[in-house]
Amino acid sequence: MDSGVKVIASGTVTSPQGFLAGAVQSGIKNKRELDLAVLYSEEPCVAAGAFTTNAIKAASIVLSRRHLQNRNAQAIVVNSGCANVCTGDSGMADAEEMASLVAGKLGISPGDTLVASTGVIGVSLPMERIRDGIRKITLTREGGHELARAMLTTDTFAKEIAVFVEAKPSGFTIGGVAKGAGMIHPDMATMLCFLTTDAAVDADFLQVALQRAVDASFNMVTVDGDTSPSDTVVLLANGLAQTETINDRNGEAFREALDEACLYLAKCVVRDGEGATKLIEVAVEGALTEAEARLAARTIAGSPLVKAAIHGNDPNWGRIVAALGRSGAEVAETKLNVYLNNVCVMKQGCPVPFDKQKVSASLGDKEVFLRLTLNLGTGRATAWGCDLSEEYVTINSDYTT
Amino acid sequence: MDSGVKVIASGTVTSPQGFLAGAVQSGIKNKRELDLAVLYSEEPCVAAGAFTTNAIKAASIVLSRRHLQNRNAQAIVVNSGCANVCTGDSGMADAEEMASLVAGKLGISPGDTLVASTGVIGVSLPMERIRDGIRKITLTREGGHELARAMLTTDTFAKEIAVFVEAKPSGFTIGGVAKGAGMIHPDMATMLCFLTTDAAVDADFLQVALQRAVDASFNMVTVDGDTSPSDTVVLLANGLAQTETINDRNGEAFREALDEACLYLAKCVVRDGEGATKLIEVAVEGALTEAEARLAARTIAGSPLVKAAIHGNDPNWGRIVAALGRSGAEVAETKLNVYLNNVCVMKQGCPVPFDKQKVSASLGDKEVFLRLTLNLGTGRATAWGCDLSEEYVTINSDYTT
Repeated sequence: MDSGVKVIASGTVTSPQGFLAGAVQSGIKNKRELDLAVLYSEEPCVAAGAFTTNAIKAASIVLSRRHLQNRNAQAIVVNSGCANVCTGDSGMADAEEMASLVAGKLGISPGDTLVASTGVIGVSLPMERIRDGIRKITLTREGGHELARAMLTTDTFAKEIAVFVEAKPSGFTIGGVAKGAGMIHPDMATMLCFLTTDAAVDADFLQVALQRAVDASFNMVTVDGDTSPSDTVVLLANGLAQTETINDRNGEAFREALDEACLYLAKCVVRDGEGATKLIEVAVEGALTEAEARLAARTIAGSPLVKAAIHGNDPNWGRIVAALGRSGAEVAETKLNVYLNNVCVMKQGCPVPFDKQKVSASLGDKEVFLRLTLNLGTGRATAWGCDLSEEYVTINSDYTT
Repeated sequence: MDSGVKVIASGTVTSPQGFLAGAVQSGIKNKRELDLAVLYSEEPCVAAGAFTTNAIKAASIVLSRRHLQNRNAQAIVVNSGCANVCTGDSGMADAEEMASLVAGKLGISPGDTLVASTGVIGVSLPMERIRDGIRKITLTREGGHELARAMLTTDTFAKEIAVFVEAKPSGFTIGGVAKGAGMIHPDMATMLCFLTTDAAVDADFLQVALQRAVDASFNMVTVDGDTSPSDTVVLLANGLAQTETINDRNGEAFREALDEACLYLAKCVVRDGEGATKLIEVAVEGALTEAEARLAARTIAGSPLVKAAIHGNDPNWGRIVAALGRSGAEVAETKLNVYLNNVCVMKQGCPVPFDKQKVSASLGDKEVFLRLTLNLGTGRATAWGCDLSEEYVTINSDYTT
């Protein structure tokens, strides 16, 4: 990490000034777990968002996009256990009611309240429980940790970060939480991620900076190639840190810190992919264009054969090359080099003898690093995926039964 | 099947007149299994082919495409256990030597000999064993069955068919063999499939008819989304059945029989997908275009979440809709209907109550049928996939170790 950006110990989405949160176990989930939460800023916020590209969209996405059109927001209500997707007009009415209930509780406008739902598709929200739950939520400065837990579905740990950025006249904080687990192959955004900052930020700059950060983080991770209809990233900036208004001209430190926070959370999402036992980083260099490098890196990170081989510590690099070949990126076989954990296994299209046992042992680490140099141009990109384990299948064989 | 096209009991690629084959255990594989085979026509053939679109191509593909440029061929040599991919100039020389050795043995031109290799990528062929093996192969009229076994890698059964077509002045036979198992998401063709016929067929017609049959069969099946660098379908026609020359004007029965043979073999490939326990048929109707219907059907058939749910008999139809939504096909949620084994579970974008236990029980069958009606246009397509089991991961975790 660059100097000037410091990770805050036990930081979360309520670490920036003026943000509160709280969660309850409302009974949406069968399990006795937190499943409903509210995030609130004491001051109105400039807001930016990135949402799923899936043609089927959650009611909450439709509503939140509409409420974000004026680039303002002050609260987010989120539930897990039910995605409120494919639920027709009543699903839309339910999302609207959630926004209204929270706005009423907080004394703000429903139009400044965003909604996010994650869980099973095709099931309506149990609105009685949600009404009761929203009433019971208590907001605190430490509530970000509860909110981080209430968002989870098959995730095994909460994903939280906060970073402090030294700046003049005043430093500022960026906080964030995310959830992931399955149906993770974001295209614009991951399942759910909420980011906050007490910096004062120009609205246009905020949206551009968020999109850039998301493109390099959430949009470069994959668990299973399935893009969810609920993918949402929202960033709220309330200005309480008394910074200068951050914009294109003075925004470098903000961008850097935001990139850092998004990348940390995106990697958490992959590490906690359903059944995942390790993180796979795929770096592609020397592609014709950056777009082709991104395509190649994501295709390799998403290949079930590559993922299964790495799960078994099998240095079967042919699968990496085969995935590259089908990615759509331009490839010249005779210029291609491939590295497994920095050991060259293929050079200029030909196999390089290597110590199989040693490389296999290194693939047993919690992080595996694949690098491909295409030697065609200057395009480069990094994607992150996880291994494919028997456990992924087991988790997903009986999700609703 | 339509009248006039009859499946031949125990039919195979040598069922059409004038085709011989044979196989040996040359020692390319560690296991004591057949791994090297030759298919030969006593008469020169008109030939057509469809090959992988993967940018990384097997040496055998490069060679066979070149040898097919004149639309003639008389023999195919095939090995399993080593794909001869990413093996540089020496790999190309090895493929050329295989063609020359077989041509020498049979007294034909190397340019009329095609080569196909399947197995591990990045390993050179053990040419001593191959030279010895080719010498020892004995060709017989029944040899198609041996050849079908010699092509297999992780496949669990041989995939063979022959159909007889009644026609005047003379009926004809089409035979075929295929292998599949893993890295199956063909784009132009599947892993390996050889088809033969004793019909006399016009060369242009043969290529068009093959491409059409492949598009509706092999190009619509998926096991794991990974397109192999070795995918090959070749069709040889030797004319020995004394038919009229079949072309655009009189080719309907030939096309129908070829479609039938390709579809049968493609479904065998899916049924025998690595770890597969059932066949999933996905029919998409009412898409804007046929291309969008194909895209939607293939995306759903390839979704790991859909595949895992069906493995567990879980009627979690939200995943089907989510996969449709990310496919790129135009979707209007409020017009969409979804059926699981002919039970409507979603109508016009809203969930339809259904007997979960009954539908779950029906998903336990060896064949599962998903149908989506988009109600936007007349595009329709069917794709075939298999379920995703823990066994798929186990098979692919230690393929080379």
